[in-house]
Amino acid sequence: MASHILLINCPDQRGLVFKITGVLYQHNLNIISNGEFVERNWNHFFMRTEFSGAFDKEKLLLDLTQALPEGVDIRLTDKKKKDIVLLATKEHHCISDLLVRFAFNELQANIRAVISNYDVLQDLTRKFNVPFHFISHEEKSREAHEAELLHTIQIYQPEFIVLAKYMRILSPGFVSNFSDCIINIHHSFLPAFIGANPYAQAYDRGVKIIGATAHFVNNNLDEGPIIAQNVIPVNHTHSAREMAQAGRDVEKIVLANALRMVFNEQVFVYRNKTIIFD
Amino acid sequence: MASHILLINCPDQRGLVFKITGVLYQHNLNIISNGEFVERNWNHFFMRTEFSGAFDKEKLLLDLTQALPEGVDIRLTDKKKKDIVLLATKEHHCISDLLVRFAFNELQANIRAVISNYDVLQDLTRKFNVPFHFISHEEKSREAHEAELLHTIQIYQPEFIVLAKYMRILSPGFVSNFSDCIINIHHSFLPAFIGANPYAQAYDRGVKIIGATAHFVNNNLDEGPIIAQNVIPVNHTHSAREMAQAGRDVEKIVLANALRMVFNEQVFVYRNKTIIFD
Amino acid sequence: MASHILLINCPDQRGLVFKITGVLYQHNLNIISNGEFVERNWNHFFMRTEFSGAFDKEKLLLDLTQALPEGVDIRLTDKKKKDIVLLATKEHHCISDLLVRFAFNELQANIRAVISNYDVLQDLTRKFNVPFHFISHEEKSREAHEAELLHTIQIYQPEFIVLAKYMRILSPGFVSNFSDCIINIHHSFLPAFIGANPYAQAYDRGVKIIGATAHFVNNNLDEGPIIAQNVIPVNHTHSAREMAQAGRDVEKIVLANALRMVFNEQVFVYRNKTIIFD
Amino acid sequence: MASHILLINCPDQRGLVFKITGVLYQHNLNIISNGEFVERNWNHFFMRTEFSGAFDKEKLLLDLTQALPEGVDIRLTDKKKKDIVLLATKEHHCISDLLVRFAFNELQANIRAVISNYDVLQDLTRKFNVPFHFISHEEKSREAHEAELLHTIQIYQPEFIVLAKYMRILSPGFVSNFSDCIINIHHSFLPAFIGANPYAQAYDRGVKIIGATAHFVNNNLDEGPIIAQNVIPVNHTHSAREMAQAGRDVEKIVLANALRMVFNEQVFVYRNKTIIFD
Repeated sequence: MASHILLINCPDQRGLVFKITGVLYQHNLNIISNGEFVERNWNHFFMRTEFSGAFDKEKLLLDLTQALPEGVDIRLTDKKKKDIVLLATKEHHCISDLLVRFAFNELQANIRAVISNYDVLQDLTRKFNVPFHFISHEEKSREAHEAELLHTIQIYQPEFIVLAKYMRILSPGFVSNFSDCIINIHHSFLPAFIGANPYAQAYDRGVKIIGATAHFVNNNLDEGPIIAQNVIPVNHTHSAREMAQAGRDVEKIVLANALRMVFNEQVFVYRNKTIIFD
Repeated sequence: MASHILLINCPDQRGLVFKITGVLYQHNLNIISNGEFVERNWNHFFMRTEFSGAFDKEKLLLDLTQALPEGVDIRLTDKKKKDIVLLATKEHHCISDLLVRFAFNELQANIRAVISNYDVLQDLTRKFNVPFHFISHEEKSREAHEAELLHTIQIYQPEFIVLAKYMRILSPGFVSNFSDCIINIHHSFLPAFIGANPYAQAYDRGVKIIGATAHFVNNNLDEGPIIAQNVIPVNHTHSAREMAQAGRDVEKIVLANALRMVFNEQVFVYRNKTIIFD
Repeated sequence: MASHILLINCPDQRGLVFKITGVLYQHNLNIISNGEFVERNWNHFFMRTEFSGAFDKEKLLLDLTQALPEGVDIRLTDKKKKDIVLLATKEHHCISDLLVRFAFNELQANIRAVISNYDVLQDLTRKFNVPFHFISHEEKSREAHEAELLHTIQIYQPEFIVLAKYMRILSPGFVSNFSDCIINIHHSFLPAFIGANPYAQAYDRGVKIIGATAHFVNNNLDEGPIIAQNVIPVNHTHSAREMAQAGRDVEKIVLANALRMVFNEQVFVYRNKTIIFD
Repeated sequence: MASHILLINCPDQRGLVFKITGVLYQHNLNIISNGEFVERNWNHFFMRTEFSGAFDKEKLLLDLTQALPEGVDIRLTDKKKKDIVLLATKEHHCISDLLVRFAFNELQANIRAVISNYDVLQDLTRKFNVPFHFISHEEKSREAHEAELLHTIQIYQPEFIVLAKYMRILSPGFVSNFSDCIINIHHSFLPAFIGANPYAQAYDRGVKIIGATAHFVNNNLDEGPIIAQNVIPVNHTHSAREMAQAGRDVEKIVLANALRMVFNEQVFVYRNKTIIFD
């Protein structure tokens, strides 16, 4: 039986769980799992409920809206696969990992296309019967290049854009088209080593651990809401290049974990942070 | 304002969260945090609710019992410090760590006494103004030794007994006095290396990771419900003795984490497993 | 400039490093990196030296043999890619990961073929232009099936056989053809959960961490020398199936790490353990 | 038999290991373990040798100096306990952990004194029979306070000063008295969250992992050579205060690990990085 997901957030007040589960009970729905969280700094309530059963969507939303305080944000969705487009540059490890998961039905998303400013990943992408668009940035203004990107992306109407080692900075104008819908993998443990060449920075600093961070993209470079992070140990014997090699496996796993949680509708974004239900 | 904790488990059915939060709402209580879990294999429901507010305990329990299915298990408690007794042998690292946390009010428990079959830890224990009982096992039958232990433990009426590197096996008879109230730290990643000398076993097997496991004690050695585990990497340069040294820091941290969760009333025990709410 | 690798092991005695580096110095060779280890239980010496320069191989080996105690084991090799054959069953994650690394020249091995007792992975394998052999075990004796496997493997003369989630047990007779040349990924943190269905075992035991182990295969199931292990946390919300899903990413990364070290000639096998130089 | 440690660093050239082990061989000494590393960016050679046997120190150093290139840095030392002084403020967890290790002879150092700008840790310190100096910073200039600190430290002639959660910044003038001899534990994963209140910064940034860093102190705040780092996962449910609590166990273990390596003479400092031999 298909399961549905209800995502609610609103200012906290007494009785919210009682009221929400009451509406679901009246509609004769079965709760599969429930998660609640109150952000104490802002006194804001978040609830994610997975449930099953047949229901009248309009009526359910109406009953919930009436039961809950003004300004409540209600989203009723399900676990259907998301349509996504991947942006990449030359490195293959994240793209490969996602294409393989897609091919074996483990991604909870349809990769509608891969777009890159180089053609290096064309052969790989086509092995998996996914359209590949080579949109070079050379001899173009940033505006012109992004306009081409945008045009191609819009063909596919993706719900999410994944920057799977896309090594160019996107302009605020571009990003503003896709609020909370662009996910990036940054090759460091943010906020350490913001910006370019984090492995070179890590090598120069002599760190003993390196990491990767998957985050939503907003208009401040590398400062959007963090979804997932992980790390691995390194030591003085690692060159910057060897740190980058070692980091690739972390990057691809962290990105895949972040996407799984986002595509499963486990993630709320609120005031530049994520609230994630297991 | 003091917070109270409600721990409920019963066979799953539709509407449980609604009914429980309904009773709390009628009693005018504020939910601070809620956790629910349904064990799908047994179709069993668990809920932990932390709430604040003034209430009539008898009435609240009655209303909950009436609202919920027969056979429900309800426990209403709070975060007050538990009374505990520690059992040890010669190694100091877990005992020291717990005594220090106790001294600085970070343990959520009162260490009423330390009991050991050696006197090695007497000086340490007394530094922290905790009674120390040296109950040697030498030239005594197991029964006689355990009778002495039991006698001394009963002076303190502890809610939990912590085996903080107590290196003797307790008899089923002894354990049966303290159902789900004895917590042990085992110096391996259970179920690997059950029994004596796990570090020697780990060395012989040439493992690349060692660990520690905190678990409730039942009548099968090292087979009680697991509360917490953690690991650290080792390699071929570690002797069995060096593995044991490296393992000590993991043991003390794993034990402290397990105790924090148990004393905070975050842990359900069900069918030889733990269900733990964050 | 190409680098060469010298792997020496012998009973320990005073002056071994001096004598070995002396021979290299006389031959005018540049040491790039050196690692030494003395296993104290057996008083056995291991040394791995990476060096560059032109040399007369026969003369170098003769000089080393003369300088070192009787019974010394000397291996002079290089970092050239190994020829390997992969065995699989139905799961794709390790095979995919290795095929992608191979395609992008990151494996330090040539995957000469994939052999499976099912045809599930045929399409994937052929995408990467690697021969795929479907050798069903159905309606065949173990002997007959293994004879077919052996026959097909021998076509490719591999230096290593990688069991990349091959779910059948190989007979001692089969294994004895490939001493220290078969590498398996076991889906648990060995020696916990030896044998079949480790995730089901882990679920039943209620562990809080699961893992994966890459090891050489010998005649005792899951008891060969361990090369690499890693773990991830799990909790009571994971079903056995979800543990298996979560475990796949660990399995593929642990296997890839183990193969990198073996193919780089970093690994000695001695008395059912590995000694691994960074 | 006592072991000695030889620490050598110099510009790299062919034959260094041969020459050094040759001198040790001529002096009839037994190498227990050897580590070598060449930093390729600077072409600089590092070697740590642990050996046993009787020898003429002056003669050995002379022979080594003559065998090695000009500008070589040779240090001949042993594993004797270091004399150290701890500086602290109010938090007890690192101080407690070190005092306990000291009391049980596990620190490889003698804690000669604890100095603090508050008197909170006085009782704890005295339990372990270690002198405690309360040197308040209130109503004093930085210069005057540091002069008092310096005066008290000099009584004990420590080889290392450990900042075990000392929450004031030391002036360059003060630091310059103790080059590569001051070790700090910073409560974040450097270089993330440099400066004050790293847990508040981590909370605001919404990170999913927090950490701790032990490093030598130089004149740029939090920018000295890193010795050890470790991390733990956190999530949206952690307040800044709870992150700080969770971080304490990491801090104390990371600091203890760093000190173990430094006191064991495993650590070279070179160009603001550490080279650490196992």
